[in-house]
Amino acid sequence: MKIVTSLNDLFDERAKLTEPVGLVPTMGYLHEGHLSLVKEAKKECKSVVVTIFVNPTQFSPNEDLESYPRDLERDTNLLRSEGVDLLWIPTSEIMYAPSYQTWIEVTELTRFLEGQQRPGHFIGVTTIVTKLFNAIHPQKAFFGQKDAQQAIVIQRMVKDLNYNLEIKICPIIREPDGLALSSRNVYLNHAERQAATVLNKSLNMARQAYKDGERSSRKIVGLIESIINKEPLAEIQYISCANTQTLEEIEGDITTPVLISMAVFFRKTRLIDNIVLGG
Amino acid sequence: MKIVTSLNDLFDERAKLTEPVGLVPTMGYLHEGHLSLVKEAKKECKSVVVTIFVNPTQFSPNEDLESYPRDLERDTNLLRSEGVDLLWIPTSEIMYAPSYQTWIEVTELTRFLEGQQRPGHFIGVTTIVTKLFNAIHPQKAFFGQKDAQQAIVIQRMVKDLNYNLEIKICPIIREPDGLALSSRNVYLNHAERQAATVLNKSLNMARQAYKDGERSSRKIVGLIESIINKEPLAEIQYISCANTQTLEEIEGDITTPVLISMAVFFRKTRLIDNIVLGG
Repeated sequence: MKIVTSLNDLFDERAKLTEPVGLVPTMGYLHEGHLSLVKEAKKECKSVVVTIFVNPTQFSPNEDLESYPRDLERDTNLLRSEGVDLLWIPTSEIMYAPSYQTWIEVTELTRFLEGQQRPGHFIGVTTIVTKLFNAIHPQKAFFGQKDAQQAIVIQRMVKDLNYNLEIKICPIIREPDGLALSSRNVYLNHAERQAATVLNKSLNMARQAYKDGERSSRKIVGLIESIINKEPLAEIQYISCANTQTLEEIEGDITTPVLISMAVFFRKTRLIDNIVLGG
Repeated sequence: MKIVTSLNDLFDERAKLTEPVGLVPTMGYLHEGHLSLVKEAKKECKSVVVTIFVNPTQFSPNEDLESYPRDLERDTNLLRSEGVDLLWIPTSEIMYAPSYQTWIEVTELTRFLEGQQRPGHFIGVTTIVTKLFNAIHPQKAFFGQKDAQQAIVIQRMVKDLNYNLEIKICPIIREPDGLALSSRNVYLNHAERQAATVLNKSLNMARQAYKDGERSSRKIVGLIESIINKEPLAEIQYISCANTQTLEEIEGDITTPVLISMAVFFRKTRLIDNIVLGG
């Protein structure tokens, strides 16, 4: 596995790869969720490029950029074991020179959910993802369903910007007790970690209610809310039932595929989770 | 010369081209300025792609989108004669589907000059150029010095967005009497056409003054202004002497390379022209 930092080294090493090239962009501190993307990329592509970059522009000033967990040595070993061909670990100075001034914005899909709660977050995401796509020129890129809105926004961007590139969305990987894997799970203490299982439990209850015939968006969101509110350590930021195409909130009955998604604080740690119903 | 409309046909034909591929993006109604870009691309690249698209998003509502001159048959014949390999003529529906919502903005360099006079113009330019770059994936792209700020903005964008792509800026092509070639020159009646030569004359006077040792930005701009103001059909929108790197206006003496640029109305027709001094 080649490891590069500078953009010129990346260009040189990329030119040597056999196509199709698959890209897995990450912020590092890798878990089985990331590795499932790498495995899928290995299956579908001749060469696999992984990037590790904790992108400062997708964090708000009050968020956890400084404390975001990092372990480059462990990450490198994991990726080498998976048979990754090229690992790019750029610096912030490479990605955002002092004269940096170019931004990509997807205007509509980002008005909801994470975009509403985290102003500027998606401008940071779409800008860095564009930079990675341009530098690496992959034929396929792999993202996780865990960040459901991100996946939808990136698919929209790729179509809008005429990239000749296939976006693959891979399923959420969960702990045995149902907690969705996230690099931020490391922030949780023992009690919070136990409490956090309520997210997946509430989504499973919602799925069951839907299977049993419940179609009222308000009732399904209410069901999730009542389950999470029974957990004293959990504080709901939002629970949403939205059209998977437009991300607009469903007010009446569910008649099209919907994304049920949520952001919940466990004391200081903010976790997200989701399921798609009727998809 | 292959001519394609749809994005999928473009992808298919692009895949057959020998690299390096050179791109010349145009809005059609081609003149010797455009053809000089094509000739340069032919010289430097194995394959040449030209695009013709009158991009609606770079026109303000009060501008000349509807009346912008078009002559696809003549354009096609000219490009065939030049030995162009692939001509892409997308429709507005292909470029901007109803759900379209992704925009690229270069924030600082676009605050001045054309960007100041034409709000939203450069968002349209950088967005469409990004779309062309992504669809065609050229190794080199050719732009004219006539649109000096556009050239500087696109170079900044290419660097910021990590494109592995060389931008070549080719010199302004002029009529024998000095008028810079522009598709919009066709709007000029006989008297306006005669009057419009004042732009190049004033720039030549400025160049001579600089050669003779004049370094005051204010005096050079004043000289140009006084020459143009003697022409009754001309109405100045702006005359600028700006740093070629930042496009910030030079207030005192000229000590770095400067872009002397202007926008002048000849009745309803707005023309631009420029020179670089000290470059």
